[in-house]
Amino acid sequence: MKKIVLTGAAGRLGSYLREPLSKMADALVSTDIAEDIGKLYEGESYLKADLGSLDEMMAVMEGAEMVVHFGAIGDEAPWEDILHSNIIGARNVWEAAYQQGARRVVYASSIHAVGMHLKQDFIGIDAPHRPDTYYGLAKCFAEDLGSLFWDKRGLESVHLRILSAAQVNNPRSLGSWLSYDDLIQLVQRAIEAPTTGFSIIYGVSNNDRAPVDNHLASYLGYRPKDNAEQFAEKVLAEAPPPDPTDPAQMCQGGPFATVELGHSGTATMNIVNDKKEV
Amino acid sequence: MKKIVLTGAAGRLGSYLREPLSKMADALVSTDIAEDIGKLYEGESYLKADLGSLDEMMAVMEGAEMVVHFGAIGDEAPWEDILHSNIIGARNVWEAAYQQGARRVVYASSIHAVGMHLKQDFIGIDAPHRPDTYYGLAKCFAEDLGSLFWDKRGLESVHLRILSAAQVNNPRSLGSWLSYDDLIQLVQRAIEAPTTGFSIIYGVSNNDRAPVDNHLASYLGYRPKDNAEQFAEKVLAEAPPPDPTDPAQMCQGGPFATVELGHSGTATMNIVNDKKEV
Amino acid sequence: MKKIVLTGAAGRLGSYLREPLSKMADALVSTDIAEDIGKLYEGESYLKADLGSLDEMMAVMEGAEMVVHFGAIGDEAPWEDILHSNIIGARNVWEAAYQQGARRVVYASSIHAVGMHLKQDFIGIDAPHRPDTYYGLAKCFAEDLGSLFWDKRGLESVHLRILSAAQVNNPRSLGSWLSYDDLIQLVQRAIEAPTTGFSIIYGVSNNDRAPVDNHLASYLGYRPKDNAEQFAEKVLAEAPPPDPTDPAQMCQGGPFATVELGHSGTATMNIVNDKKEV
Amino acid sequence: MKKIVLTGAAGRLGSYLREPLSKMADALVSTDIAEDIGKLYEGESYLKADLGSLDEMMAVMEGAEMVVHFGAIGDEAPWEDILHSNIIGARNVWEAAYQQGARRVVYASSIHAVGMHLKQDFIGIDAPHRPDTYYGLAKCFAEDLGSLFWDKRGLESVHLRILSAAQVNNPRSLGSWLSYDDLIQLVQRAIEAPTTGFSIIYGVSNNDRAPVDNHLASYLGYRPKDNAEQFAEKVLAEAPPPDPTDPAQMCQGGPFATVELGHSGTATMNIVNDKKEV
Amino acid sequence: MKKIVLTGAAGRLGSYLREPLSKMADALVSTDIAEDIGKLYEGESYLKADLGSLDEMMAVMEGAEMVVHFGAIGDEAPWEDILHSNIIGARNVWEAAYQQGARRVVYASSIHAVGMHLKQDFIGIDAPHRPDTYYGLAKCFAEDLGSLFWDKRGLESVHLRILSAAQVNNPRSLGSWLSYDDLIQLVQRAIEAPTTGFSIIYGVSNNDRAPVDNHLASYLGYRPKDNAEQFAEKVLAEAPPPDPTDPAQMCQGGPFATVELGHSGTATMNIVNDKKEV
Amino acid sequence: MKKIVLTGAAGRLGSYLREPLSKMADALVSTDIAEDIGKLYEGESYLKADLGSLDEMMAVMEGAEMVVHFGAIGDEAPWEDILHSNIIGARNVWEAAYQQGARRVVYASSIHAVGMHLKQDFIGIDAPHRPDTYYGLAKCFAEDLGSLFWDKRGLESVHLRILSAAQVNNPRSLGSWLSYDDLIQLVQRAIEAPTTGFSIIYGVSNNDRAPVDNHLASYLGYRPKDNAEQFAEKVLAEAPPPDPTDPAQMCQGGPFATVELGHSGTATMNIVNDKKEV
Repeated sequence: MKKIVLTGAAGRLGSYLREPLSKMADALVSTDIAEDIGKLYEGESYLKADLGSLDEMMAVMEGAEMVVHFGAIGDEAPWEDILHSNIIGARNVWEAAYQQGARRVVYASSIHAVGMHLKQDFIGIDAPHRPDTYYGLAKCFAEDLGSLFWDKRGLESVHLRILSAAQVNNPRSLGSWLSYDDLIQLVQRAIEAPTTGFSIIYGVSNNDRAPVDNHLASYLGYRPKDNAEQFAEKVLAEAPPPDPTDPAQMCQGGPFATVELGHSGTATMNIVNDKKEV
Repeated sequence: MKKIVLTGAAGRLGSYLREPLSKMADALVSTDIAEDIGKLYEGESYLKADLGSLDEMMAVMEGAEMVVHFGAIGDEAPWEDILHSNIIGARNVWEAAYQQGARRVVYASSIHAVGMHLKQDFIGIDAPHRPDTYYGLAKCFAEDLGSLFWDKRGLESVHLRILSAAQVNNPRSLGSWLSYDDLIQLVQRAIEAPTTGFSIIYGVSNNDRAPVDNHLASYLGYRPKDNAEQFAEKVLAEAPPPDPTDPAQMCQGGPFATVELGHSGTATMNIVNDKKEV
Repeated sequence: MKKIVLTGAAGRLGSYLREPLSKMADALVSTDIAEDIGKLYEGESYLKADLGSLDEMMAVMEGAEMVVHFGAIGDEAPWEDILHSNIIGARNVWEAAYQQGARRVVYASSIHAVGMHLKQDFIGIDAPHRPDTYYGLAKCFAEDLGSLFWDKRGLESVHLRILSAAQVNNPRSLGSWLSYDDLIQLVQRAIEAPTTGFSIIYGVSNNDRAPVDNHLASYLGYRPKDNAEQFAEKVLAEAPPPDPTDPAQMCQGGPFATVELGHSGTATMNIVNDKKEV
Repeated sequence: MKKIVLTGAAGRLGSYLREPLSKMADALVSTDIAEDIGKLYEGESYLKADLGSLDEMMAVMEGAEMVVHFGAIGDEAPWEDILHSNIIGARNVWEAAYQQGARRVVYASSIHAVGMHLKQDFIGIDAPHRPDTYYGLAKCFAEDLGSLFWDKRGLESVHLRILSAAQVNNPRSLGSWLSYDDLIQLVQRAIEAPTTGFSIIYGVSNNDRAPVDNHLASYLGYRPKDNAEQFAEKVLAEAPPPDPTDPAQMCQGGPFATVELGHSGTATMNIVNDKKEV
Repeated sequence: MKKIVLTGAAGRLGSYLREPLSKMADALVSTDIAEDIGKLYEGESYLKADLGSLDEMMAVMEGAEMVVHFGAIGDEAPWEDILHSNIIGARNVWEAAYQQGARRVVYASSIHAVGMHLKQDFIGIDAPHRPDTYYGLAKCFAEDLGSLFWDKRGLESVHLRILSAAQVNNPRSLGSWLSYDDLIQLVQRAIEAPTTGFSIIYGVSNNDRAPVDNHLASYLGYRPKDNAEQFAEKVLAEAPPPDPTDPAQMCQGGPFATVELGHSGTATMNIVNDKKEV
Repeated sequence: MKKIVLTGAAGRLGSYLREPLSKMADALVSTDIAEDIGKLYEGESYLKADLGSLDEMMAVMEGAEMVVHFGAIGDEAPWEDILHSNIIGARNVWEAAYQQGARRVVYASSIHAVGMHLKQDFIGIDAPHRPDTYYGLAKCFAEDLGSLFWDKRGLESVHLRILSAAQVNNPRSLGSWLSYDDLIQLVQRAIEAPTTGFSIIYGVSNNDRAPVDNHLASYLGYRPKDNAEQFAEKVLAEAPPPDPTDPAQMCQGGPFATVELGHSGTATMNIVNDKKEV
C-alpha cells in the first residue's frame, strides 16, 4: 500500500495506531490539531489540520489509498463542538477522501451510536441506531454518511463501533473493554480485507461478558485475544450496588445513558474514566 | 389541544396543512422564512423565523404542545445549505420543542433516508438507513435525533417518510404517490395517537404499486384512501423504456439514486417534477 | 358435525355464541356454573358443571367433536381464584376433551397474555408471552397447554386472543374493539378450518387503529367487517389527556398494565368497562 | 412492446393468456407442441416447437422482448418426462431468451415448489424450497435458474407460484384458487413492472382463506379481485371429514403432499381436479 | 451480598450449589422439605419448608437479596403433584421474594419448556414454548411468571434452562450434558450480573454437539469449560440404532418427547438416568 | 454400521475419505467411473459405475446403510455434462439409495449453490439459493432433491456446502479453506449424528476470515481445528490489488462469480487452483 492517512493522531487511541500503521504502507500521513506529535516513525509525516476545514482535509488526503479516521471530540460535548468536529469534520473527511481517490475509510465509530439499547438485548451490528448523546448522534451521522458514499460513489468504509478502550475498573468495562492489542488487530483487519463495501463491526475484546454480537462481521477476520475476565474478581468486589432500574447499568452506553445532552465532566471519577474513552 | 406549531408553512406541503391543523387546536402558530403567508385561518398566527437560529425557534415554540416540522430545503442541495436548514435546523426544532415543554414532534422525513434500497425489497419501517443524497442523509440525522430525544428526554416524535407528493406523471409515482388528502389524514393520525414514543411511518397513498411496507406502523390508524392506479394506463403508455440496470428505476429513491451529491436541477423535466416533491 | 360443547355459556361472550353454535352441529352442549341459562336453542342442552372438577368436565365432554372453551374468570382476580377456574379449569377441559375423543378446542385466550408489549411494537401472534396480570398469566398457561396436547396427543387447538369485546368508549378501544359479529365469525372460522394444529389468532375487528398484526393467522380466513373508527370523533373528543409515560396508554393490555396483581375493581368507571371484557 | 413469446399456448392456462397478451405487444408468438391452436388473435402467430430442443427454442425467441413461459407438464409425472420438459425445457427457454436478447421471463412456477410447508405457517415468498413432487422439484430448479441468469447475465424473471387455477370444489381450493381474471392481471403486472430483477410472487386470488403471504411482492402491484369465499358454504357442506394428521389437508401442496413421486392419476376425482391445475 | 436463599437444597443439583453459594453471601438460607440436610457450611442455615405454602415461603425469604430456586419435582409426575410443587410452588416463591424485598430470582428452568422443538432447529432462547410434559409445562409457567413479576413489579429473574445434568451415557447427553462445574459457573454468573431484567439462558456445557444456541444470553458471561466429547467414542459405540422417526432422538426433550403425560418411571434404565436429571 | 457406499472415490476429495470411511463400517463400497482406484483398504471393495445410470446405481447401493455422495463433475462445465453427472446423477443416487433401504445420504454440496451472495452478508445455512454457475445450480437441485426425499420418503440427508478444499494461495482461500482433516471430521459427524432429517452445513475450517455462519448446524458437532490464518502474511503479501467492484472478490463464489456459464479453464492459474476444488 502506498499511503495511509491517520486523523486524530495525537489522541489517545490514535497515538497507539501510529506505529503499526507506519509499517503497513510506504507512507503514513498523521494529522491532528496539535502543533506536533513528537518523534515520527519511519515513513510517517505529520500535518496539522482542522477536521472542520475541507481545504485542509483535501491537502491531507492527497494520494491516500486508505484513511483511518480517529479524529473527533472523544466525549459528550456541547452541540456546537460536536457539530464542528464530529459532523462537519466527518463530512469533510469523506468528501476529501473521495475527491483524492482513496479506496476506503476506516472509522472510529462508537457503541454510543446504539447506546440506549439494553445490554440484555445482545445487539448485533444490524440493530437500529439508538444514540445516547450528541456524541453518539454524530457517530450515527458518520455511519449513514459512509453508507451514502459507498452506495453513490463507491468509497468503501468500515465503521468500528468501539465499546470502551480504557482500563477495566468497573463492572461495565468487564464487558466493554477493548485492549490496545485488540484495537490494533481490529484496525489491521479492516485495512487488509480485500473488499468491504459499507461495513460495521464492534470493537470489543474477547470478554466473557461482552454485551454485543459481532458475528455478522466475522468475515473481516477479527479475532480478539484479550479478555477482561482476569479483572473480574477485583472489579466485582469493589462494584457499587446493582440497580435494576439504572439506565447506566442496563444500557449499552453505560453512563452516557444518563448524562445530560451536551454536557460532560459531571460524573464520578470511575464513570469519567469509563466514558472518556471513545 | 392548546397550541400546534407548523414549520415550513409557506412550503408546498406546509401550505396544505395550515387549514386542517388550524382546526385541531385552539391556536396554530405557522412559521417559515417568508415575509408572510397571506390570509390566516381562524386561530392561526404567523411568525417569520429561521430554522438555523435556536433563539428564533425558542420564540416560535413557546407554549406549543405539538410541533409539525415540515420546514427544510425540499430537494438535494449543496452540503452547506442542507447543513444549515436540515441538520442544524432539525436540532434547533427538537431542542426548542423540548425546552418549551412540547409533547411531540411530527416530522416530514422522506423515503430518501432509505432511497438506495431496492423497490423489490419492499422495505418496512425497520429497514436500515440507506440515504441517496445529502438531503436524505439529513433525514436520517433527524430520525436519529428524534430517537435520542425520546430515549433521553421523553419528547415523542413521529417521522413521516413521505415517498412523493407530486403529480402522478411517471412510473415511479404510480407507487410512490401521496395525495394531499392522504397527507392530511397521515398528519392528523400522527397528532391524535395518545402515545407514540419514537415512531416511523411511510407517507404513501393506497397505491396498488406502493413499494414499501407500512404494516408495522398500522397502530397509528393511517388508512390511505387514494390510489394512483387510476393514472396507470396513461402513465405507462408514455413511460420511457424500462432499464433493469438503472438505479433510478430500481431504487426507492428514484432519480435521487443517480443525482450527484450536493447538486440538483440537472435532471430531465419529468425527473425534476418527481424529485422536487419532498 | 355431531356435537359442540360450549363452556362459559352463561358469560357475556358465551351467551352470544349459543345461537350460532347451535346451528353448526347436531347438538350443542352448553355448560357453566349457573343453575340455568334460560330458554335453550334448538339442539342445545345445558349442563351445570364446575371447570375445577375433572369428573364434571368428563361428563360434559362426552361425545364432543369440538370444544369452545369460554368459561373462566373474566377479569384480574386473586391468585387462588385464577388458579382454580383458569389454570386447573383449563387443564381439566383439555384433559377431558382428549379423553372423550374431541378433535379440537377453540379457546378464549386474551391480549393479556401479551399485554406488557408496547402497542407501538405492533406484535404478531409470534410475540413472546408478556402477561400483565395473573389473569393474563393463566392465558399463557392455557396456550402452552394447548401446544403440549397438540404435540403429544394430537388434540388441536385455536387460541383466540381477544383484545376487548366491550363498547368503544375510550381511545384504547378504538384499536382493541372486537364486535359481536366479528366474534361470531372468528369462532366459526376456528371451527370450520379443516386442520389447525396449534394455532393462535388475535380477536379484533377491522379497526383502523388495531395495534396487533394478525397476518400469520390469515389462513384461517377470518376477515373482520366492523371498524371502531365510526366512534373515533366522539371518543377522542372525550379522551383524557395523553401521557407518553403511562403504561395503560402505551401497552397492549391497557389498564391491566397498571392494575396490581390479584386485584380488580379499583379503576375508574371507564377503565373498568374496558378491562372487564375478556 | 415489440414482441412477446408465450410457451404452453395450447395448455389450459396458456390458452387464456393468448388474447390479453396479443393486446400488450405488436406481435405475440405463441408456441406449444400441438400442431395448431386454432384461430389466431390479431398480431398472434403460432410456432410448433419442443421445449426440449434448444434449437427450436432459439427460433421461437428471435426478437422477443418478453417471454411468458407456461409450457411444461402440468402434473406429477415420471422423472424422465419431468426432466425433459420441465428441467431441460426451462434451461432451454432461459438460454434462448438470453441469446436472443429478451429482457425478462415471466414463468408459471407453482406452490408445489414449497408444497411441503404447512398451511399454518403462512409462508411468504422467502420460505425455503420444500418441493412435494418431481413436478415441484422442477419448479425449484427453474426458480434457481432464474436467479442464476439474473445474477450472472442480467436477464430478469418473475416467478408466479400459482396455487391452483381450477374450480373451487374442495376445502383446499377455498384458499388456493386463482381465478382466470386474476391470473391475467398477475401476468400483466409481471410484464408491466419497469424493473423486477429476480422476483417471486404467489398466484392466488383475494381469498379469505388464502394460505400464503404475498406482501413482499406487493411492489408489483398485483391486487386480486376474486374471492373463493362465495363458494364456501357449498364446499364446506360437501367436504370430507377433517383429518389433522393428513398431509394433504395440512400442507400447502394439498394432495401432492401424499402422491407417490413420479406417479399421477391415482387420486380420487376431487383430488385429481385439484392437482391437475398447475 | 447479605443473604441468599436456596430452595431444593436437598436435591441432587441443589446440594452441589450449597457450598459455592455459601461463599457468595454473608448468609445462605437453605430450604427443602427434608428434615435436615446434614452438616452445614459456614454461614449456612437450614429451614424446612413446603413450596406449596406461601406462609412458609414468606418466612424463608425474610431479608433475602437473591433467591436461587431449585426446589421442585424433578421429573414428569401426575398433574396434581406438578401443580402443587412446580406451579403453586413457583408462584409462592416469586410472591414471597417480592414481598420480602429480594432483588432477583435465579431459577432452575429446563429444556423441557421447549422440549418438542427439533434438535435440528438449533433453537435459541427466543424460541416459543413447546413443552413436552406437565413437568415442562410448569417450567413454561414459571418463565411467564418471572416475566410478569419483572414487568409489573421490578423483580428480576434469570431462568436457567438446564438440558441434562446427569452422566454422559447416551447419544443425547453428548449434546445436552451440563457438568457440575459449569452449573456452578452458570449460577454464579446469573447472580453476579449487575442487572438482568427478565432473562433466559440454556444450561449446557461446552459440548461439541450441543443442540441449542445460547448466544443471546452471552452478556451474562457464562463460558462453559467442560465438553462431553471426551465420552463420545464410548457412548457412540454402545448407542442403540438411530431412528430418524423417533421423537426421543429428534427432539430437544429426548425421552420426555415420548413419555405419556403425567407418568414417569417406565422408560429403560438409560433413559431414566437421562430424564431424571432436571 | 454394516455398509457405507462412497461415490466419487477416485476424485481428489473422495480418495481422502476412503481410509477413514473404511474404518467406520463393516464394509465400504467405493465407486467411480475409473477402471480401478488402486490398493483397497480393509473392508473396502470397488465397483465401477456411472452416476448417469440408475441401474448401475441400484447395484452399487445394495444393502447400503449410509451413502457418501462425492461423485460429480467438480468444476463449471458445459450444461449437458452437468446435466448428466450432477443432476441426473444426483437423482439416481437418491432414488437408488431409497430403493435399497439406505438411511441417509451425505452429500458434497458446495458454496457455489449460494455463490452470488456477498461475503459481507455472512450468510448462514438458511440463505436462499443464489447459484453462480451451472455447477452451483446442480448443487441447488440436489439440495432440493434431498429435501423432497426426506419430506416424502423419510430418507435423511446432510448437505456439506464445501467452500474450497485446495491450497491456501489467494486471499479468498484465507476464508474459504477446508483442510483435509476438517473434511474428514465433517463427514464423520454427518454420519454419526443419530438423526439429521434434511440438514445443510458449511464445509470450512476454523479460519479467522471464514465468510459463512455455520451456527445453525452446530448440533451436528462439527468443530474444525485448522485455521488458514497461518498462511495470511504470505498470501496477503502476494495478493493482487483489491477491487471493491469485482464480483470475484466480493462474492462467496469467488472466481465462479465471474466465469461464463458452461465454461471453464479460462481463469488465471491462481483462480483455476481455487475453483477446481469442489
